[in-house]
Amino acid sequence: MAVYTAVSAELLDDFLSGYDVGRLLSAKGIAEGVSNSNFLIETTSARFILTLYERRIDTSQLPWFLGLMEHLADKGLPVPRPIHDRSARMLQQVAGKAACLIEYLPGVSVSQPTPAQARAAGEALARLHVAGADYTAPRANDLGPDWWRATADELGPRLDSIAGGLQGLVADGLAAVADWPADLPRGVIHADLFPDNVLVLGSRVTGLIDFYFACTELYAYDLAVLHAAWAFSADGAMPLPDHEEAIFAGYESVRPLTEPERSAFPLLGQGASLRFLLSRAHDWLHPAEDAMVARKDPLPFARRLAHYARLS
Amino acid sequence: MAVYTAVSAELLDDFLSGYDVGRLLSAKGIAEGVSNSNFLIETTSARFILTLYERRIDTSQLPWFLGLMEHLADKGLPVPRPIHDRSARMLQQVAGKAACLIEYLPGVSVSQPTPAQARAAGEALARLHVAGADYTAPRANDLGPDWWRATADELGPRLDSIAGGLQGLVADGLAAVADWPADLPRGVIHADLFPDNVLVLGSRVTGLIDFYFACTELYAYDLAVLHAAWAFSADGAMPLPDHEEAIFAGYESVRPLTEPERSAFPLLGQGASLRFLLSRAHDWLHPAEDAMVARKDPLPFARRLAHYARLS
Repeated sequence: MAVYTAVSAELLDDFLSGYDVGRLLSAKGIAEGVSNSNFLIETTSARFILTLYERRIDTSQLPWFLGLMEHLADKGLPVPRPIHDRSARMLQQVAGKAACLIEYLPGVSVSQPTPAQARAAGEALARLHVAGADYTAPRANDLGPDWWRATADELGPRLDSIAGGLQGLVADGLAAVADWPADLPRGVIHADLFPDNVLVLGSRVTGLIDFYFACTELYAYDLAVLHAAWAFSADGAMPLPDHEEAIFAGYESVRPLTEPERSAFPLLGQGASLRFLLSRAHDWLHPAEDAMVARKDPLPFARRLAHYARLS
Repeated sequence: MAVYTAVSAELLDDFLSGYDVGRLLSAKGIAEGVSNSNFLIETTSARFILTLYERRIDTSQLPWFLGLMEHLADKGLPVPRPIHDRSARMLQQVAGKAACLIEYLPGVSVSQPTPAQARAAGEALARLHVAGADYTAPRANDLGPDWWRATADELGPRLDSIAGGLQGLVADGLAAVADWPADLPRGVIHADLFPDNVLVLGSRVTGLIDFYFACTELYAYDLAVLHAAWAFSADGAMPLPDHEEAIFAGYESVRPLTEPERSAFPLLGQGASLRFLLSRAHDWLHPAEDAMVARKDPLPFARRLAHYARLS
């Protein structure tokens, strides 16, 4: 988490002159995001986040992501709104990088959510699914089942260098999800709604952020990602039943699950676990690609994978 | 520039409950400072910077620094005020680190100051010298002439591995400053008032920050540091006469220099150049101590040193 690109106050001042946002009062590089540089900007009219897209992002997809954020904000979700400049453009170039000025939202990301916060996150996810249903063309899930298989193949026996037995655990998981329930309800999903991507004040959700993995996918898979992220101890070893119950209650208060979604849940949880296990394992085994980013331990998602497998 | 210590929202919430500052609304780690972790905190009442002191700082000196900031703020200088908790304490422990909650000030640090900004910085420095004159006990300059000599001795011929002739240039500089004008007016100085430590809005100074090199030293040496930092092109190769004139005009509008200060200026400029040349050369040759911090090139201060030597 770092600021990769220096942006001078003079350049920012010039950049902001293209918007109706008042004059620059303050700018601080903030330590958020591993793919972006982010600046918290204060002007005489409001506060904003300026995001520079640095890596791991296909900038041709940015109009889809930014359009989605605007679509959801228009529907009243607490999603930061991309700001239009005087020529109605959202996507810009700053210091040679694709960039967007984005609404600032209050709230904090908690490290150990309470059940009440997990419930609010579940409810917000369902609202996102409902509000996104009429959003433009679909976007494929780049980190879906095909990617899990390709990545497991590429990492191969090196998985066992992270922890003994990991390759076998992944192979078993992939065998289970070979029968992927592709006919469940689908639409726009967030695909990465971990606690760090949810801003809260008390148990109220004030922000849903970081839409750069959003895609068209099974709604219940997104709920499985949320479940994997919020309903376990950090090391993945201990399921948290109160959080689990709260997530489902919150979600279903807006969008009740269908019976097929419910019965597929252990399988979807294995898929969600594989997705984060494999992306973390990939980064673990390729640290030089991204030396400034702290590696995340894959094993907490191996434990989740084993948990969901036991339920299947 | 990074955030070295993670502080959870839960921990922050608990920490802030010891103050009369309202409830936490937002917290962002900010990419400022190489010795500290800093968080921009918003509460229901105001904004603050929370600083965790990480390295390169003798925490036993923190009461002196924080007391100085409060002293200067009390005198009306735009210096961020350390906040007292309900037990009147300024210095705290957060996540095992010494820490202080500090007033947030608006303004930006410019990369290429204008002469008007240089003038305002010179004036602010003189106000700091006047306001600090009655501040408590003296504090020695840890990075003064003795440190320059010791560091040059330690680095020795390795200086030439940075650039050919650097050891000789440093030796000549040290010979010149051997006759250090110790009888000039002295008092509390900032000792590091580079453009990144001055917040401005237009050509108004709204903040003087980062007092962790402040000490008791020759006032005119502090002005020489400001001159070295503000009156040259970034590579040190080109003096900026308009900025030079503006700095002196701003400073002397508050505190006119004495004739001995004025005639010692080229020598003081050599001292200021040695201080930054040697600290950067030290970091250049000891990168492993601080792998996360980008090394700053020592050579721009070698060029400044040569410039001041030519004036002597």
